[in-house]
Amino acid sequence: MIKILDTTLRDGEQTPGVSLTPSEKLEIALKLDELNVDIIEAGSAITSKGEREGIKLISQQNLNAEICSFVRALPIDIDHALECDVDSVHLVVPTSELHMKYKLKKTSEETLQSALEAVQYGKDHGLIVELSAEDATRSDINFLIELFSKGAEIGADRACVCDTVGILTPEKSIELFKTLSNSINIPISAHCHNDFGMATANTLCAIRGGAKQCHLTINGIGERAGNSSLEEVVMALHNLYNEKTKIITEKLYETSRVVSRLMKLPVSPNKSLVGDNAFAHEAGIHVDGLMKHTSTYEPLSPEEVGNKRRIILGKHSGKSALKYKLNLMEVSLNNEEFEEVYSKIKNLGDLGKYISDIDLKTVINEVKGHKIDEKIILNELTVVSGNKITPLASIKLDFADEDNKHKSIIETAYGVGPVDASINALRKALSGFADISLIDYQVSSIGKGTDALVEVVVKLRRGNEVVEVKKSQSDIIRASVEAVMEGVNLLI
Amino acid sequence: MIKILDTTLRDGEQTPGVSLTPSEKLEIALKLDELNVDIIEAGSAITSKGEREGIKLISQQNLNAEICSFVRALPIDIDHALECDVDSVHLVVPTSELHMKYKLKKTSEETLQSALEAVQYGKDHGLIVELSAEDATRSDINFLIELFSKGAEIGADRACVCDTVGILTPEKSIELFKTLSNSINIPISAHCHNDFGMATANTLCAIRGGAKQCHLTINGIGERAGNSSLEEVVMALHNLYNEKTKIITEKLYETSRVVSRLMKLPVSPNKSLVGDNAFAHEAGIHVDGLMKHTSTYEPLSPEEVGNKRRIILGKHSGKSALKYKLNLMEVSLNNEEFEEVYSKIKNLGDLGKYISDIDLKTVINEVKGHKIDEKIILNELTVVSGNKITPLASIKLDFADEDNKHKSIIETAYGVGPVDASINALRKALSGFADISLIDYQVSSIGKGTDALVEVVVKLRRGNEVVEVKKSQSDIIRASVEAVMEGVNLLI
Repeated sequence: MIKILDTTLRDGEQTPGVSLTPSEKLEIALKLDELNVDIIEAGSAITSKGEREGIKLISQQNLNAEICSFVRALPIDIDHALECDVDSVHLVVPTSELHMKYKLKKTSEETLQSALEAVQYGKDHGLIVELSAEDATRSDINFLIELFSKGAEIGADRACVCDTVGILTPEKSIELFKTLSNSINIPISAHCHNDFGMATANTLCAIRGGAKQCHLTINGIGERAGNSSLEEVVMALHNLYNEKTKIITEKLYETSRVVSRLMKLPVSPNKSLVGDNAFAHEAGIHVDGLMKHTSTYEPLSPEEVGNKRRIILGKHSGKSALKYKLNLMEVSLNNEEFEEVYSKIKNLGDLGKYISDIDLKTVINEVKGHKIDEKIILNELTVVSGNKITPLASIKLDFADEDNKHKSIIETAYGVGPVDASINALRKALSGFADISLIDYQVSSIGKGTDALVEVVVKLRRGNEVVEVKKSQSDIIRASVEAVMEGVNLLI
Repeated sequence: MIKILDTTLRDGEQTPGVSLTPSEKLEIALKLDELNVDIIEAGSAITSKGEREGIKLISQQNLNAEICSFVRALPIDIDHALECDVDSVHLVVPTSELHMKYKLKKTSEETLQSALEAVQYGKDHGLIVELSAEDATRSDINFLIELFSKGAEIGADRACVCDTVGILTPEKSIELFKTLSNSINIPISAHCHNDFGMATANTLCAIRGGAKQCHLTINGIGERAGNSSLEEVVMALHNLYNEKTKIITEKLYETSRVVSRLMKLPVSPNKSLVGDNAFAHEAGIHVDGLMKHTSTYEPLSPEEVGNKRRIILGKHSGKSALKYKLNLMEVSLNNEEFEEVYSKIKNLGDLGKYISDIDLKTVINEVKGHKIDEKIILNELTVVSGNKITPLASIKLDFADEDNKHKSIIETAYGVGPVDASINALRKALSGFADISLIDYQVSSIGKGTDALVEVVVKLRRGNEVVEVKKSQSDIIRASVEAVMEGVNLLI
């Protein structure tokens, strides 16, 4: 069983610009413990007072996971770690000429001595000690063996090899870990960085070479290009290497999103396994294959990592995808109608358009010759906002009642900003129709100027049904209100 | 010299939800040609009319790169490719039992025969033919050898091995490509997917095994988790494997951003090599090492890929980073002041705050006891917007003139939306002060509701000086105006 040290809260939190409060650190630690990681590196106690509060808060929870702090080979660092009641320390010692000479300004003898003193100090204070060589992949192999062997003699519990600037290659990784595990009699851990995009492969090859543990972060976050990604290494171990870990893989997607939200680091749609496109399919050949056998274009089922399959319509779509979507929508078309809808969808795709469920519905209605029965129409929207007034909005909606009589409803509301005021007014106006709630609202800009497009994505729920609508417009308020209106009309 | 087939415009564009117009395809192709890729797979001609227009537009440019279309083993696909005047076809044939049986519903004999007929058809029409085995990594090796050998006999110019669902591992990749290149006498290409995060490593190992060419996309975009990333494979070949390609690496960052903008796919900050964090440093130990020798924490210099180094202040920062920033700002502090600024920065970091240049300036001014001389103050801002009116804004700025007399200026403007109207009014009001231009404006939401924070990032330029200001607020208009105001005050 390969052991996982999760360093999302230490190396992951070192992502430039990221900073967590103690309670946010705790929230992530609880998720990691649910995921069943073996060790949580909760931070670096020397960093700051807030960091120590966070680590201590985590130590006090009595989690299943071992709680660890990063320390340098300095008594003061270890003292701070002890203050936080951790179980273990990840004791890092630079071992390359470059790091010893320029950064530490120490000889290798001095480095070795201070490292061993620190190991002794940690053991004397009852800590589990993982002795870690920084920049190990640019270090002299004999020095590494000497450091780890002498460390083991005085009680170091584990050794760790850091590929600090991500220059390892898979072949070198296997070789290095083979050599080390043949020379050292404590378990060796691999800590890889992703500067050339090979952190995952290098970690897996380290395990092939004999490593028994690895350092990983959720979503692969971390310094520069990040660390080895937990979800990639774990799933590759389970599915491609026939190795086991304790991780409850079905919780990976959910954990990914908690980390993303608290660290304010969005997960790229094409992130392996946990990205929203990781199991999304548009190309005709792919969707067609998938409908016949999901393994044709999926190496594992999305449920294994708590993610889900998405079929997207666009210019690359073939007829299978359209059939799939029509089935989901419970729409039946005759052959002629089907061909016409298909050709219109391809034309929309050629215009560079992403085809949403709404677009598809519109096309179907066009082809079938019936007008879209938009049940509720946005007649009027006015918003006033500024730095000296409370943002306010008025909204007028038109609709036909049960007797098909034309009616209007007017509402006003305020909010923390103009978008919030508008959506609040809309919510009030809609409250008579159905119990629809806004469960997600995301904005991002496309392009560079203030007149560029803003993309708004809203998710609405009514009972068990959820719809997602995207709107791109230059006016963020109109984009937001129109997206919600479309979603509401889809749901009723 | 390893050859690069760039498939950003084919497999990359198959990213679910992405669709380019013909002129956007051309813009990317021109960039790829500047980057000096060997082959541009410009699309799949059978896909749609617009796709064919795009491919033809690219073929007509007489680029240095060979222009290629994806085709299935069908005469109609090859006819469509010929219509687009391409130099070559990437002729894809499924070779795994799974794909032949479920997707194609053909036996391996039938598959082989139609593949060879298609190769012959392509050669008869003067095309360069790259014969490609889909799902090759789950196919019978003897069938692959038979297909490629018979293909080569009748003129196929290159063979390609597709790891269609990304299940290859580095060790298997070396072995597979060794076996194939020992059995086949045309160059072999590797086409890898990133489902387990190993596309780059698998491609590099394929080259170690004997592949002479590889299929790559800018930013690693593509179906599901994407394809092997061009920047990663090329830089690893150059810097870790001592292999050469024709790529002009200094153009990688710029190319990455053009693709991102046109495909509307943001580049993750921690994307290897081309991400905005790929050379960013915050942690104290790292910045300290870096100041002494950049190699300590950088495997290559950011300029090699056209990216740049960024030093970020936050709770993990040490004193070296602060000194570096103070030097850049040409601020000198005595020891006592330095310690006070340092401790305040750490406190801000503990609150979960990202520390911008403005925050640092504010802290310095607090410590030095002088008030920030905000030269221009936002007194009043009012914005009116809606679906039936032209968005408009009025703004009132206060400032002191050269004789230190209090003055005000009021301006109004309209815009495509409320933010645009406000910034237009602000621009008009500021035009008398200095020639400051807004060079970048980005919005993204943090959190889920319409009352959640929105983060606005603006970049302003005055002459050679550029400042970047971030503002997080619930009100997008106020966040935008205040960010611009702060930037303006920084620049004057």
